[in-house]
Amino acid sequence: MDKIRIGIYGYGNLGKGVEKAIYNNPDTTLAGIFTRRDPSLLSPINKDAKVFSVDDAKKMKDEIDVMILCGGSATDLPIQGPKVASMFNTVDSFDTHAKISEYFSNVDTSARDAGKLSLISCGWDPGLFSLNRALLEAVLPNGTNYVFYGRGLSQGHSDAVRRVKGVKNAVQYTVPYDEAVNKVRNGENPNFKSVRETMWRECFVVLEDGADADAVEKEIKEMPNYFEPYNTCVHFISEEELKEKHSTLPHGGFVLRSGTTSNNVNQVAEFSLKLDSNPEFTASVLVAYARAIFRMHKEGKTGAVSVLDVPVSLLSIKDREELLKETL
Amino acid sequence: MDKIRIGIYGYGNLGKGVEKAIYNNPDTTLAGIFTRRDPSLLSPINKDAKVFSVDDAKKMKDEIDVMILCGGSATDLPIQGPKVASMFNTVDSFDTHAKISEYFSNVDTSARDAGKLSLISCGWDPGLFSLNRALLEAVLPNGTNYVFYGRGLSQGHSDAVRRVKGVKNAVQYTVPYDEAVNKVRNGENPNFKSVRETMWRECFVVLEDGADADAVEKEIKEMPNYFEPYNTCVHFISEEELKEKHSTLPHGGFVLRSGTTSNNVNQVAEFSLKLDSNPEFTASVLVAYARAIFRMHKEGKTGAVSVLDVPVSLLSIKDREELLKETL
Repeated sequence: MDKIRIGIYGYGNLGKGVEKAIYNNPDTTLAGIFTRRDPSLLSPINKDAKVFSVDDAKKMKDEIDVMILCGGSATDLPIQGPKVASMFNTVDSFDTHAKISEYFSNVDTSARDAGKLSLISCGWDPGLFSLNRALLEAVLPNGTNYVFYGRGLSQGHSDAVRRVKGVKNAVQYTVPYDEAVNKVRNGENPNFKSVRETMWRECFVVLEDGADADAVEKEIKEMPNYFEPYNTCVHFISEEELKEKHSTLPHGGFVLRSGTTSNNVNQVAEFSLKLDSNPEFTASVLVAYARAIFRMHKEGKTGAVSVLDVPVSLLSIKDREELLKETL
Repeated sequence: MDKIRIGIYGYGNLGKGVEKAIYNNPDTTLAGIFTRRDPSLLSPINKDAKVFSVDDAKKMKDEIDVMILCGGSATDLPIQGPKVASMFNTVDSFDTHAKISEYFSNVDTSARDAGKLSLISCGWDPGLFSLNRALLEAVLPNGTNYVFYGRGLSQGHSDAVRRVKGVKNAVQYTVPYDEAVNKVRNGENPNFKSVRETMWRECFVVLEDGADADAVEKEIKEMPNYFEPYNTCVHFISEEELKEKHSTLPHGGFVLRSGTTSNNVNQVAEFSLKLDSNPEFTASVLVAYARAIFRMHKEGKTGAVSVLDVPVSLLSIKDREELLKETL
């Protein structure tokens, strides 16, 4: 069997996760890593992996079956998504919820014109959480969706804390309230009035020498949008402790739907993730969907799609008979 | 918009659940209930619902978009599945895991010859659990699946207890051990040596007058396959208490996959259900998939498919734009 040749476009935490995920999937092979940096300065996990400049991608259209875009949603993907979709089948993790429709449309046009297929907004949210939201909404039309994030490290909130004057380094964890999750699980259909009732934020902060701890704590807790709407707890620790205990990227969360099928008959469904590494898990999802995109493109599908358009059988390395016998 | 016209083939607990589910979905309408009994003796939930003999189904090929088969897997569906698939698009909940391949093949041939589309083995297991098993196997190739059932009423085990001499009435609940579930959730990747470590069985028994309680309890606990491999607890209660506290059909369970994406990086994903009514939930799943089957058949698809072949977007009453904006 010819292996599916995957390219990695962008080599940060997510790109490294994709490289690992390719090695975990026996039917995929790494065709190349594409970087905006000097290729000679990159150190892939497998030292024999080929590294190219992003400018060389256009010469390699026949050597890559699916390009996985590992750039960020804020500034990279809005440009890269449509551009790379005009040359390759692509999979990306665009996660700016408010702009998904616009992004979908741009990538769709570009991919369709090129006869390529692009999967946008894949990962766990959007991604596996979206899949479960759509599934459970359809199955329980009379119901309410709930989403909780954490316990997990939020990159955006950690960055916000690091920008506070007097902060040398910091990480921030988003933590759901067990009590809130359990109310949903028990079918109580709670009506949460604010995010403050569903989750809180925990910060581990290393101060600059001579910084005023009280002032730092006050500034964090009162930061609009990021922290003011939540209960926030700030711990001051040493740089050593931060490195030792807070240098991984765990995350997770829950999608729940609670609904009724007749009077007083309540049904609760839940999908949850508990991840030691957010980027490695997201990368694993991207590679499984790259397999599906490769197959759907072979069947003649072009344009943009989301995880909601992909039958799960196409993600699997198993054939139909194995799926019927072992998995169904 | 024309509503999707659904027929119900068989009217037990599941058929009644399908009738309720149709009323919960504004784009579906009940075209008729088909029974092997005397149609005049049936009391549908909506007294205006039309009831026909199964023998009349063949005259109604143009009046029904999807027929939902609500018979049992042991003796009804192996005959009804291929037979009805030669006249209608069908959805069924065939759940004899060992015979799924054979059943799929029989229904596939029949549906394909007739230009119809059939979804087999839908519900929650097989069904939503299968979908999550396949999804999570693909996303975490280096991992282990775990399934736990309960707490829930098992019809088969309740029947087995009721067949014991001296038993007037009984129900049996399957109960997972929290400790076992939590080991998996915590990423401990336990290797359970027997089912006894993962779940136990709880029986509520009403004795016949003069029956020997000790003898009944012994016979239940030693029953091969059904109870002998498990820890079983037997409670003797009155007929009144049984009716009052044990007359609903709750069920549920958990599918978990625990896997690694690199050394010491563990990822745990879980899908769980907590159902007040097993048949009503299963019925709701069948109706959501009937919507998808109607759409896929319109697009020209014929033969047999499973839930793994159906993109989740086709289950949704929302259109693509709404799904992108609200659900993805």
